[in-house]
Formats: sequence, structure tokens, C-alpha cells
Amino acid sequence: MDSMTRVERALSTALGLAQGSEQPANLVNAMRYAVFPGGARVRARLCLAVARACEEDKPTLAAGVAASIELIHCASLVHDDLPCFDDAATRRGRPSVHRAFGEKIAVLAGDALIVLAVQSLVHAAERAPSRLGPLLLILSRAVGAPNGIIAGQAWECEPQVELAKYQQAKTGALFAAATAAGACAAGRNTGNWHLLGERIGEAYQIADDLRDVFSTEEELGKPTGRDQQLGRPNAVAQMGMTAAVSKLEDLVHTAIAEIPECAGAHDLRAHILAEANRLLPRQMARPAA
Amino acid sequence: MDSMTRVERALSTALGLAQGSEQPANLVNAMRYAVFPGGARVRARLCLAVARACEEDKPTLAAGVAASIELIHCASLVHDDLPCFDDAATRRGRPSVHRAFGEKIAVLAGDALIVLAVQSLVHAAERAPSRLGPLLLILSRAVGAPNGIIAGQAWECEPQVELAKYQQAKTGALFAAATAAGACAAGRNTGNWHLLGERIGEAYQIADDLRDVFSTEEELGKPTGRDQQLGRPNAVAQMGMTAAVSKLEDLVHTAIAEIPECAGAHDLRAHILAEANRLLPRQMARPAA
Repeated sequence: MDSMTRVERALSTALGLAQGSEQPANLVNAMRYAVFPGGARVRARLCLAVARACEEDKPTLAAGVAASIELIHCASLVHDDLPCFDDAATRRGRPSVHRAFGEKIAVLAGDALIVLAVQSLVHAAERAPSRLGPLLLILSRAVGAPNGIIAGQAWECEPQVELAKYQQAKTGALFAAATAAGACAAGRNTGNWHLLGERIGEAYQIADDLRDVFSTEEELGKPTGRDQQLGRPNAVAQMGMTAAVSKLEDLVHTAIAEIPECAGAHDLRAHILAEANRLLPRQMARPAA
Repeated sequence: MDSMTRVERALSTALGLAQGSEQPANLVNAMRYAVFPGGARVRARLCLAVARACEEDKPTLAAGVAASIELIHCASLVHDDLPCFDDAATRRGRPSVHRAFGEKIAVLAGDALIVLAVQSLVHAAERAPSRLGPLLLILSRAVGAPNGIIAGQAWECEPQVELAKYQQAKTGALFAAATAAGACAAGRNTGNWHLLGERIGEAYQIADDLRDVFSTEEELGKPTGRDQQLGRPNAVAQMGMTAAVSKLEDLVHTAIAEIPECAGAHDLRAHILAEANRLLPRQMARPAA
């Protein structure tokens, strides 16, 4: 089964846990709306690519972990889009959750997706209970304070921010969790696996900055030019397009060079290169090698 | 060590996990502000009372679980107070988190406290890893969709709500988690322990309704008369004061009669009676028996 199908199925299983015979329909519908249809599931597929490279022995666990990471990502998008943050009207080509369901439900759906990420991970780890604690620590550190994606968003509320620190928390942390958790789900020592994710997160941030400047709203499914409008740092604005693309390529190659020893390093390398190319604005992407 | 001290210490340990050498100060300060100084820690002390009644064998775990429940409760207060919900200006006698730190940080602090509840529970369960999964399932079901406190809040966004269902989710679910998790932390089968918490949660809801009508803002540390202002159901408005007090007493006695068999049932009974009396508006409380 390809990794996208595995992720979608695991997400579907997870969302099933949020449903009951009686339920507040708006909340449950909003949670589903925030998750399906998804984007490229970049973090979740990276997690699975690492688990595969580490010769995963618990496929249900690895898929569950990947789904949890994606649920957290979806939750962060719902809250980032709120009126008090980006006030985004659209996401993935249709109204954002708060525009479709109202602000209250958007706050609650984000909260409930965080909780669901934990609950579904516990279920996925039923047959590998000794891995549950380590996986949850990887995940919770990548999400909460002081260094996770919530902290990353919170750096925007500080008078002074070191750019690298901000981006590492806001974007890098969940990528680092994806690679570390992929290895952990496969029963491996997480060792330096998080460094790979950090590097890919940095590359992803630059790709995101490039797309914010050079993609169309139609291509992205959300407004472009937001960094400039919201006064957020953007690599293209800081260093120009050529240097940004070049830095992205450097980061991808550094990442690949740093893949920890594992049986499936070759396929993992191919996955990362294909992803990097796919993430560039359409006009910059290279034909597949 | 008395249970209040145990809860405060466990909360302090938990908050320590949210701090780092570099951190977004507003976020971390807001998290601490939302937790300290606290209220009566009703749910956390109930959890510990049950663990004690079940002859707890892992005091660090029980205290950690109690702290996690309290962290979730604090997170729910931060989000419930947001402008899009109750728009509460005060909480525990001082500005609510969004008034003190701004709306963005209030959203993020609530999110981060949910994550911290999980992270600190994983740490507390380090020496009892087989209890981690069951405890996290108790907690996550009590918090998320379809039946947890987030779902309870979401029922307010539905056109039709069955009152009992709404209150069970919004208030009862976390009390039920407190009693079930207290037993689970002590290594017991959770059996009917959640029913005790449900009943106490119902009683607590009535006590809360009574206080909303009969207490002063000074006594509560938050505005009174909010149910009427916000059009929320209130037991006093529905059945009158005398019937509400009488129902509360019935619920407490039913709860006590339903305490599952355990070594410390006598002390647990005394704890529940003392709490029930303490939760009544000052003018209604009886002298301690």
C-alpha cells in the first residue's frame, strides 16, 4: 500500500474515534473538514518513509504515528487561520474552518484534534506499549512549550525574535518529530533522526516562502503574498529568489547526506528529493530525474 | 503530605517541562498564570482521594495524573473565557488570560496546556509504563469528541441540546475521569469508578449554578449571574433554590452510596461530603459535622 493511502486510512480510523451515537455535529463535522480532503500530508509521509527505511516491524503503529502528526498539523492550521492570528478566509481551496463553522467551533475543533492525536496514538500503540511513552514525548515536545510549534507561533507575540529559533519551532519541530517518530515507531533508537527532520523543515520553510511569493492562489488553495501583508519574515524577501532556491537545494543535500545508517537509505533519499522538487512553485520545479 | 500540596507540587513539576533556556516568554508566563494560583483543585484532589482510597502504590503517578487533569481543566477555562465564548474579563479574582496576555497567547496557552497535560503524564508514568495507555485513554475520552469537555462546550453551538447530555460532557466527563484515573493510577480496574465521578460532576454543576445565582463576585473571583446573561441553563432558574439544594444533596448521597468497594471508602466518603459543603454558596454551607 502506498504511503498516501496508509496515511488516509489511519486518519480515517482516528476520526472514527471522535464519533459517537450522540455528538455535537458541528464539532465533529469541523474536525473532519479540517482533515479531509488534506494537503500533501508531507510530514506524515516523511514519517512513514523513515519507518520504512528503518524496516518497520509494526505497520499499524507507524501509520498511527504518522496520522497523529498530521492531526496535530491540521489542528495548527485551524488555529493559525483564526481571526486573531492570520484571519485566513481560505485553506486548501475552500473556506477556512472558522469561516465555514464559526470561530467557536474552530477553536474547539483545533483543541479536539490535538486530543485526538493522542488518543489515536494510544490505540495504534496497543500492541507495542513500550513505544508509547517515547513516541508521546517526541510528539508533545514538538508541539508544546518551550520549543514546539505552539511555541513557534507564540514567538510572533514577542518583541524580539531570532529568526532561526522561530522557524525551527514553528516549522522544524514537527518535521523533526516526523523523522524521530518514524524511527521510534520502527523500534529504532531515535539517535540523530530528528536532525534530518530539522533540515527538511528548514528546506520546507524556504519552499513555503517561495510559494508565498511565486505561486498563484489557485495553485496553493490559500491566499499568496501573506508574509508581506502580515509582516512575517520571508526568505525570498530577505535574500532574493536565486539565493533562496540555492539555499533550499543546499539544505536538501545536507539532509540527504545526514540520513542515519539504515537499510532503506536509498529509497528515503529518493523520497526526500522528489518531495523537495514537488514543493517548489510549479514554474521552478524540475522534471523528475 | 496533604493532597493540595501534592497537587501543587505536581503542577509545578509539570510547568517546569514547559520552560527552556530560550522560550517565548509570554506563552510560558501565560501558562503559569493560568495554573497558579489555582482554585480549589477540586478534580485533582478528588483523583488523589480515590487513589488513596484504592491504596495507591505509585504516589508519583497518582499525583501526576491529578496534575494532568487539573492542567486540562485550566486549559478549558482559558479557552472558555475567550472573547468568542464567554468573553470573561476576570477569573480567580484577576484578569482572565486573554485580558492579561492578549487573545493570541490565550489560544496558544490553552493549546500548550493540553499538550503539557499529556507530556507530564508520560513523565509521571515512567515507572509504571503499563498504566500509561489506559490513563491516557481515560483522559483523552474525557476531553475530546464525542463525549468530553470540548464536546460539552461544542453542544452550545448546536440548535438542539439535551440538557443532561450537555452537562455530562461539559462538566461530568472530567470528574468521571478524575475518579476512574485515580483508581487506574493505583493499579485498580476502573470498573464503576467513573460513575462516582459522574454523580459528583452533576452535584458540582448544581453547586456551580447555585453560586452563579447566590454568590458575590468577590467570593467567586469571577462575575456572577453569567448563566442568565449568556442564556445558559441553570438549575436554580429551572427548579428554584430549595429544589436545587435538595437535588444536590440527593446526588451527593447517591454518589457516596455508589463508592466501589475499596479499603479507604470511609475517608473517601468524608472527602466527598466536605467538598459538597464547601462548594455551596457561603450562606448555604452547613457547619462541618
